[in-house]
Amino acid sequence: MTASAKFTLVYTSSPELDFVHPPPSTKLGFAKFRTTSIGYQRNMTSISKNLAPIKAMEGSRMQSYVEVKPNGHAVTNDSNGSILHKSLANGMESENIVWHKSSVDKIDRQELLQQKGCVLWITGLSGSGKSTVACALTGALHARGKLTYILDGDNVRHGLNRDLTFKSEDRAENIRRVGEVAKLFADAGVICIASVISPYRKDRAACRSILPDGDFIEVFMDIPLCVCEARDPKGLYKLARAGKIKGFTGIDDPYEAPLNSEIVLRQEGEVCPSPETMAEKVISYLEEKGYLQA
Amino acid sequence: MTASAKFTLVYTSSPELDFVHPPPSTKLGFAKFRTTSIGYQRNMTSISKNLAPIKAMEGSRMQSYVEVKPNGHAVTNDSNGSILHKSLANGMESENIVWHKSSVDKIDRQELLQQKGCVLWITGLSGSGKSTVACALTGALHARGKLTYILDGDNVRHGLNRDLTFKSEDRAENIRRVGEVAKLFADAGVICIASVISPYRKDRAACRSILPDGDFIEVFMDIPLCVCEARDPKGLYKLARAGKIKGFTGIDDPYEAPLNSEIVLRQEGEVCPSPETMAEKVISYLEEKGYLQA
Repeated sequence: MTASAKFTLVYTSSPELDFVHPPPSTKLGFAKFRTTSIGYQRNMTSISKNLAPIKAMEGSRMQSYVEVKPNGHAVTNDSNGSILHKSLANGMESENIVWHKSSVDKIDRQELLQQKGCVLWITGLSGSGKSTVACALTGALHARGKLTYILDGDNVRHGLNRDLTFKSEDRAENIRRVGEVAKLFADAGVICIASVISPYRKDRAACRSILPDGDFIEVFMDIPLCVCEARDPKGLYKLARAGKIKGFTGIDDPYEAPLNSEIVLRQEGEVCPSPETMAEKVISYLEEKGYLQA
Repeated sequence: MTASAKFTLVYTSSPELDFVHPPPSTKLGFAKFRTTSIGYQRNMTSISKNLAPIKAMEGSRMQSYVEVKPNGHAVTNDSNGSILHKSLANGMESENIVWHKSSVDKIDRQELLQQKGCVLWITGLSGSGKSTVACALTGALHARGKLTYILDGDNVRHGLNRDLTFKSEDRAENIRRVGEVAKLFADAGVICIASVISPYRKDRAACRSILPDGDFIEVFMDIPLCVCEARDPKGLYKLARAGKIKGFTGIDDPYEAPLNSEIVLRQEGEVCPSPETMAEKVISYLEEKGYLQA
């Protein structure tokens, strides 16, 4: 039940910045490196987000274990498991927290579920159909025997995020927590469908950055404001126009449309495709990228 | 894929306190009531936690739909779906948040996974073996084809809870969030293993209260302090005794041992059972209570 993790240990111009690529998943403890996969790139300077810097010793390029910890700790061990080096990247505040290796990891869970854990991040204006598409998606995927879970921005506010208000910093924290929980679900092997307005690019980018490459799949509900406002399923645009809700996305607060979403769902001319049709587009993407198998 | 929810709509001495029993699961939207299951108990006064109060009209005892929302909203509809009544129990702060019904619910996911979602809440002193037992548990359950996920107190502090310190109110918030996330996992159908010291009874009770009856399974690692301190796997007791860590559970902060844990794991005389033996005890409980089947 150990992971057959495929990472490359990349040497950079500074031992302090050596890193593994791709970034490790949350639960990764010891990643076993096969000798063949240990790379060597001295001139690499840009390092991807969320990586775990490794302080590797010059003479120890053949070490076969690297313990990668999301808090920036990284420990390179020799094949007998003894510690060669230890670095602490993110300061001292969490030095008494030890990352626990789990005997069952993401790869094991994915094999059990016959799917790959990921996050479908549905972003768009209120009334753009995020929840409706999420619902159609979960239905269609469940019918194919896939395990999904919807994190709905509104619903999470009743539980995990019930301490948060709608002021700016709390909104960012709301998105951050949804992103962190989505990451846990993806790590559990679940296809997690996050349905949140998430109007700001930087908040969405932060959620993307904590997930392994490819596992954050942004689905942009590109529905014109006038259409959303005409639908106004919760009557919120009406309240916002009347000044009864302040800072409402699309009215008196911006929606920063994604520039490079993996998937864009939009109207065809004046006609909005059915939720099922939209869901099928997302499912095709998942199929193509291999997320519907282990 | 609609739920065959079995609830009883209970009338109390006050229409404001009418409720459904058992309390609804998180994702429940519309619960269809069969006429036969609509109860009538005028003299009931104590109402269980986490229920959704329903303001039912005197003359409408035959309504066939009740929309139950965890924030206290409850809407009784007639069989055609039109709203008869609406109540708001928990104040006005969340009135613009609408609970979304999902087309796939907990029961559907449980059928897919052939298990029941629940939370195994492992509580105990640092060094009592929480993570080790969690690890053995996840391994043994995975080997039986069951989907588990470990929420480790330490690990969560690297992500979701990285904004929290170790001061008293942040510790409570740490536990609250672990509880809320565990609840989401259980709702997803996963057997969620939360491994957290969680020293205070009231914090554990709060986590229990947000889950459906029976789904919060407290596992108390009843290992004497002297044994935990002798193990000291992270060297934290030594630091605490030296005064380098303040407010350390068991040393200068209390651990409130559970009084009514579902499962207690303890030494037999001087000998501590193996993690696998302890895990088997937990698995027997799950089997007995039907959590290892849909």
